[in-house]
Amino acid sequence: MSSEAGTKSDRTRERILHAAAQAFRGSGYALTSLRQIAENAGMQAGSLYYHFANKDELVEAVLDEGVLGAQRAAEAAIGDLPASANPLEKIGAAFRGHLAYTLEEADFAVATLRMLHQVPDAVRIRHLRKQRAYGRFYARLFEEAKEQGLIRAEFDLSALRMLLLGALNWSPEWYDPAGLSPDQLVRQLTAMMESGVMPPSKRR
Amino acid sequence: MSSEAGTKSDRTRERILHAAAQAFRGSGYALTSLRQIAENAGMQAGSLYYHFANKDELVEAVLDEGVLGAQRAAEAAIGDLPASANPLEKIGAAFRGHLAYTLEEADFAVATLRMLHQVPDAVRIRHLRKQRAYGRFYARLFEEAKEQGLIRAEFDLSALRMLLLGALNWSPEWYDPAGLSPDQLVRQLTAMMESGVMPPSKRR
Repeated sequence: MSSEAGTKSDRTRERILHAAAQAFRGSGYALTSLRQIAENAGMQAGSLYYHFANKDELVEAVLDEGVLGAQRAAEAAIGDLPASANPLEKIGAAFRGHLAYTLEEADFAVATLRMLHQVPDAVRIRHLRKQRAYGRFYARLFEEAKEQGLIRAEFDLSALRMLLLGALNWSPEWYDPAGLSPDQLVRQLTAMMESGVMPPSKRR
Repeated sequence: MSSEAGTKSDRTRERILHAAAQAFRGSGYALTSLRQIAENAGMQAGSLYYHFANKDELVEAVLDEGVLGAQRAAEAAIGDLPASANPLEKIGAAFRGHLAYTLEEADFAVATLRMLHQVPDAVRIRHLRKQRAYGRFYARLFEEAKEQGLIRAEFDLSALRMLLLGALNWSPEWYDPAGLSPDQLVRQLTAMMESGVMPPSKRR
């Protein structure tokens, strides 16, 4: 759901989510108040309650937005590929979308990392289901790549996927916008991945 | 400094560091008390003060131990290689040492990630110097690998290093001891790295 297409209420909701992600990133779950988030979003606490009934509802929306936003960006990047793209090219495109979103909206990624262990169990469990659904999206692409003989037999697909996504997910901790662009950074990873996992016969 | 070789005072210090890492991992910097750490370490708060004058001294020791422990493990793994090992093989060995330490002593890695942004600036700045020194240890190995023609020209050594270390550093977030061993996991990464970064003429 892009902000351009949304109603005024959608846009306000999005503004609250961004203010909340920034506040949770800075202060963690326990020390952040709804009053502070409302203030950061430039609104009265009463107006915020119109969108989110309580802190747990808001924190869950922030956690989910980080995953769903990355997934939307990954799917959109695959959608831009020619129909002839192979599964490894699709993984590369998904990584580009994922990293661009993760670095542009770093508050969501970093806030999630810093507070996921602090939130109530029910919130964390529901959120982890969404993370796993996004993980399955990649798992299917890696399986297709292996079925098409693009990944050597020695690789454990689950480990490979988690290592590569970890490389991307860690990047907000060190990324410097003065250096490589997000796209250039992903190309370093995908250049290594493509010749790194393919059998010699498939390498170009 | 291994606990076997240390004095009784060294061993007590190590026990405090482990109890502190576990407490900081669970509760973050602000919400963890020295009293709680002393209790976890099975000692009186007064005895703890004999080793660490205050919370900031202890938190800095925990942050530093996470980096220095990983670096000691990485250097030891390189030391076990035959003298003929090339720089990429040294990087692979260092990664094995690094990951084994990071997963065995996950409290240090996760506590650092969760509280580095919360600690006083002076503590963080001094600690980041130690992180950078460890980064230079890897930077030199990647430079040697490139000088020996083991890494293709298209790669940015700094990006490559940060992506690969990120893949390892993220792993405590998802690693499942029921699956691959730490060694098997690193071999997934180094198998991809070796054929992924080498020019075709150097691949075996």
